[in-house]
Amino acid sequence: MFFASDNSSPAADEIMSALVAENVGYEKSYGADRAMRKVREHVRSIFEAPEAEVFLVLSGTAANALSLACLCPPWSAVFCHKGSHAQHDECGAPEFYTGGCKLVLVGGTHCKIDPEELQHAIETTGVLGVHNVQRGALTLTNVTEAGTCYTPDEMRRLTDIARTFGVRSHLDGARFANALVNQRCSPADLSWRSGIDVLSLGGAKNGLLGVEAAVLFDPSLAWEFQLRRKRGGHLASKNRFLSAQFGRYLEDGLWLDLAKRANSMAKRLAAGLEALSPGALLHPVEANMVFAQLSRSRHRRALAKGAEYYLWPTTQSLEGDSDELLSARLVCSWSTTQDDVDRLVDAMG
Amino acid sequence: MFFASDNSSPAADEIMSALVAENVGYEKSYGADRAMRKVREHVRSIFEAPEAEVFLVLSGTAANALSLACLCPPWSAVFCHKGSHAQHDECGAPEFYTGGCKLVLVGGTHCKIDPEELQHAIETTGVLGVHNVQRGALTLTNVTEAGTCYTPDEMRRLTDIARTFGVRSHLDGARFANALVNQRCSPADLSWRSGIDVLSLGGAKNGLLGVEAAVLFDPSLAWEFQLRRKRGGHLASKNRFLSAQFGRYLEDGLWLDLAKRANSMAKRLAAGLEALSPGALLHPVEANMVFAQLSRSRHRRALAKGAEYYLWPTTQSLEGDSDELLSARLVCSWSTTQDDVDRLVDAMG
Amino acid sequence: MFFASDNSSPAADEIMSALVAENVGYEKSYGADRAMRKVREHVRSIFEAPEAEVFLVLSGTAANALSLACLCPPWSAVFCHKGSHAQHDECGAPEFYTGGCKLVLVGGTHCKIDPEELQHAIETTGVLGVHNVQRGALTLTNVTEAGTCYTPDEMRRLTDIARTFGVRSHLDGARFANALVNQRCSPADLSWRSGIDVLSLGGAKNGLLGVEAAVLFDPSLAWEFQLRRKRGGHLASKNRFLSAQFGRYLEDGLWLDLAKRANSMAKRLAAGLEALSPGALLHPVEANMVFAQLSRSRHRRALAKGAEYYLWPTTQSLEGDSDELLSARLVCSWSTTQDDVDRLVDAMG
Amino acid sequence: MFFASDNSSPAADEIMSALVAENVGYEKSYGADRAMRKVREHVRSIFEAPEAEVFLVLSGTAANALSLACLCPPWSAVFCHKGSHAQHDECGAPEFYTGGCKLVLVGGTHCKIDPEELQHAIETTGVLGVHNVQRGALTLTNVTEAGTCYTPDEMRRLTDIARTFGVRSHLDGARFANALVNQRCSPADLSWRSGIDVLSLGGAKNGLLGVEAAVLFDPSLAWEFQLRRKRGGHLASKNRFLSAQFGRYLEDGLWLDLAKRANSMAKRLAAGLEALSPGALLHPVEANMVFAQLSRSRHRRALAKGAEYYLWPTTQSLEGDSDELLSARLVCSWSTTQDDVDRLVDAMG
Repeated sequence: MFFASDNSSPAADEIMSALVAENVGYEKSYGADRAMRKVREHVRSIFEAPEAEVFLVLSGTAANALSLACLCPPWSAVFCHKGSHAQHDECGAPEFYTGGCKLVLVGGTHCKIDPEELQHAIETTGVLGVHNVQRGALTLTNVTEAGTCYTPDEMRRLTDIARTFGVRSHLDGARFANALVNQRCSPADLSWRSGIDVLSLGGAKNGLLGVEAAVLFDPSLAWEFQLRRKRGGHLASKNRFLSAQFGRYLEDGLWLDLAKRANSMAKRLAAGLEALSPGALLHPVEANMVFAQLSRSRHRRALAKGAEYYLWPTTQSLEGDSDELLSARLVCSWSTTQDDVDRLVDAMG
Repeated sequence: MFFASDNSSPAADEIMSALVAENVGYEKSYGADRAMRKVREHVRSIFEAPEAEVFLVLSGTAANALSLACLCPPWSAVFCHKGSHAQHDECGAPEFYTGGCKLVLVGGTHCKIDPEELQHAIETTGVLGVHNVQRGALTLTNVTEAGTCYTPDEMRRLTDIARTFGVRSHLDGARFANALVNQRCSPADLSWRSGIDVLSLGGAKNGLLGVEAAVLFDPSLAWEFQLRRKRGGHLASKNRFLSAQFGRYLEDGLWLDLAKRANSMAKRLAAGLEALSPGALLHPVEANMVFAQLSRSRHRRALAKGAEYYLWPTTQSLEGDSDELLSARLVCSWSTTQDDVDRLVDAMG
Repeated sequence: MFFASDNSSPAADEIMSALVAENVGYEKSYGADRAMRKVREHVRSIFEAPEAEVFLVLSGTAANALSLACLCPPWSAVFCHKGSHAQHDECGAPEFYTGGCKLVLVGGTHCKIDPEELQHAIETTGVLGVHNVQRGALTLTNVTEAGTCYTPDEMRRLTDIARTFGVRSHLDGARFANALVNQRCSPADLSWRSGIDVLSLGGAKNGLLGVEAAVLFDPSLAWEFQLRRKRGGHLASKNRFLSAQFGRYLEDGLWLDLAKRANSMAKRLAAGLEALSPGALLHPVEANMVFAQLSRSRHRRALAKGAEYYLWPTTQSLEGDSDELLSARLVCSWSTTQDDVDRLVDAMG
Repeated sequence: MFFASDNSSPAADEIMSALVAENVGYEKSYGADRAMRKVREHVRSIFEAPEAEVFLVLSGTAANALSLACLCPPWSAVFCHKGSHAQHDECGAPEFYTGGCKLVLVGGTHCKIDPEELQHAIETTGVLGVHNVQRGALTLTNVTEAGTCYTPDEMRRLTDIARTFGVRSHLDGARFANALVNQRCSPADLSWRSGIDVLSLGGAKNGLLGVEAAVLFDPSLAWEFQLRRKRGGHLASKNRFLSAQFGRYLEDGLWLDLAKRANSMAKRLAAGLEALSPGALLHPVEANMVFAQLSRSRHRRALAKGAEYYLWPTTQSLEGDSDELLSARLVCSWSTTQDDVDRLVDAMG
């Protein structure tokens, strides 16, 4: 009953097999490996973007921060949601990699940026000329931190606003596959056709050992990205072991299959919780994360029976006399089973 | 006949097996995994340093730059050899991570820093007070870029000079295991007993898929290191897959066995080349790298028969009428075989 | 009728005379001048802080950013008011000088930080350990951007909250003299006795040609400050011409006299506007700035008759058919005269 | 007998008068002042560069570092002379402002870069692709740190080499006026016609209170320069007091007259020292600085009689029994008199 994080799952068997298969003989280092060529071909074909460039790094934080650094000069503003990973969970990596950008926080329900608030935030940035930071980039997250998904239309509306002001767009797609299977649209629809210039395409949360890709739909950014990646220590000498994972991930729709499993388990979990405690769900459950408020006693029971997950925000406490509602984040992954879900719901019952 | 780089070898079978074995069930993310605890225990025990802290990252560049950043404020000088990796092969990562340090280059034969030159370099840094960059840290490399090794005495002499001026010392140990088996001394002798405060302990060049450790003999640096690592995007969410590798690496002396194989193959290769062309060796062969000058025709023959290695410096050309001597770098790894070596020598004959 | 900015006034005659008097013979450069010694003595005596260190720079942005950089590591949060100069008017200088801090915005009426909001902002920063930016420094502004003043008690309440969390405090005192004459307390009361560790002590807005001081009540920060100042290009070679101004400024209470004139003109202006249009004042007028809302026709009349000031925010427009209320910022300085004020009010009448 | 630094002279009377004259009435802040418009016109006309942009800052370090930052991305190399101010006397300001550039040191006699060494340095930078820092900018200094001057031809030869590799050129002209009157060529000849893209045009060492200009011959750099200047805290709120100085400086050839005085005093001093001790001069005396080696006893006599100057390098000592030769730097300025010079030579006699 492990629902604490999709980072805690093992790697998918197919991925581990691909890694073992890669481990034969010598291979060129620093990204010149044959497996990397295959990753590039897969990405270009799957995203219908024959010019796109793709580079691998170890962490989502690196993929995001390096991407933003290619879009924003140091004296610029990055527009992001108030609750975004970039703002809260990267220890200032965007500021570090960009050389000191300012994150301008924008509101919106269910962790999706509100178009009017975005318009206002961009409009009021840079109006005093040299005294202000300038308009830099927009960064969206899909799946959002609330487990909700932007539709292509919603994304396009936001990136259109940005583009009006000359602002380019980045997508934090740490759970891009989960968003994609929810939206049932094409990868292109949910990225460059929705106005995205650079995509952080996640892998670790969806069955890899730890690889993320940066997909540059504008290939003119490629050289700068590579220099920044090297300088940041993110160019793997034995890149073959990253590309072997990512190549297999994109093959035969494995990435989508893994995401589907995770999403369907979240749906099952949501239904179970809603049955248990009507109104428990805090956000629409559109991907692999469930945010729910349940009574303290339910949480205590579940955790006592071995369930693992976080109260969210983490500052809430299980201790206390009252049986008030406490909110929690419950994350499913490709390896979550129906049995895991059902036992969790039972434990809370 | 692959002698281009030890980064091109596969991972050792023991490592791959450990990785597969780790891939079961759920595990805490971001370094709280059980395998990491084992890595810490191994390091403390092997280095006879019960207080030491150890953190894993994907690349040697990251290990080096993060370590230096913890030792040097932005307005300081890093003293390093003229031919060092930090100066030539990291695209300015030390400058990036430290916030703009200045690398002060020091000479010395066979890529080992000359004590008098170091003394002079440190003495003349920071003498004009606020107008100069201040004395920051010393960084040594063992195995050096010339394939030579510092003895513990040689290292201590340099770190003693540094300490006189309040300058702390870092060791780039991308090939630390290879230096260790050459020196036949203890890990402690070649690190903290030789005055090293922070060690970048390599793995990728010696049989791992791609993990390096930063060993902090001064644990007071640990929190800053962790913040810098996270901010740099080098904290792996699924750290278990890094620690599983590194734990196995340090178990049962595997790291030393792998290094011994590589070193002995380099000795064999050196002997073969010297027999072929007396005086060919440019530096003492003390670890897994051979630097040799051989006639252009020998290189052509070898490369035509499928040998892979670099002319070093890479600006030399195989084209040309004269049969002049061209220098090359030939790197052995744990996976180099006697047959590889003998076929290469034959091919050059 | 110039009310656009206190940066637009000339320098006070006394200051210019001091500058001319300084311009005789040779003097040591880079801060070793005799006039600087006098500045140090004045500051220590006036602030009853015999250990304090003081350094001069050309701009308030530099004084603020250098001070914050000495208080906050790159991975930390600077807590400031939503409307603060640091956030809006320095083109990211705090981010640049600190190496990428994050400004965490805190609300409060009349541009004064609300204690509860501060408590909450600090409490919720850094709670996820290495994933978050850490608690860095608090920066207050007195006189605030709304022309209001913190009392020593109000400041102490905020710095006490900060100190509870190990957070140190900086005061942006670009208009410190104006706050001081408003509060009728001692310089010590409004700075270190109120918990301030570093003070940016303004001069340019109050009769100097362009000098600001950083007063470090904790002298252990002095060497780092000096290195950062030099590295930032803010150590004046001919520092004598900065110190001559600042020395005279602090002599015989000149700084307070100049501020009194400015404040009293603002009071007069406020009274005039309130008489003209009851309820016009948007914030209490406690120093040298008046924020007032007046009908578009009044603004048009005044500006047509040669008055100079900004609609505030500057995005409002004089054009338009309706006679709606538009808000404006009207700034008095040491050189504003009663006649200026009365003519402005007349023009609006 | 003050020969320690041209930074120790007072400001010229004409400059002080201009400053006093400027101090009347209100003026737009942050560079929108009328005096600044005049500076721009002067610069464009004097440099025959109708498109050039010019911005003022307080220090030469700021002018240099901001200029380099506009020419070099963070992952690039700045090519400079081994003895340059950028390397030795700016506490790492170029590294700070560029975001972590690497200064690549080039040799050459009398502090003038040797063309072949430059060619080699540039050629060998960036050859390993993403692993190396890339080619950034060339920075020359005229007058050099040895008091010698580049001819336009010499400069052009160096900037031509740079341009071949796509490397742009900056000139540190802290003593540009002194070089100009030595070369008897036009300002354009010694700057853009010699391949210079950005010029740091000095003022403080030649009679101003403390203002330097950055002249951008490529106006497309102007906006980035202004943002970097603001962000660095170098945009003066009361810029009028900088531009009043600089405008007068460039009027009626005052800048050249002041430089001529300084240069002619250096010639007189050089002749006196050479007569006293044939062979004393260490570098050709082409501007306002004299580098001479003289016996320890001569130095003692001079300093005992009140002369002020530095032994150079400053690590030499006046103490010691032997009467060996010690080298010194003797700097003349616009305010040095014949009497000063003659008394110094007498004192050493």
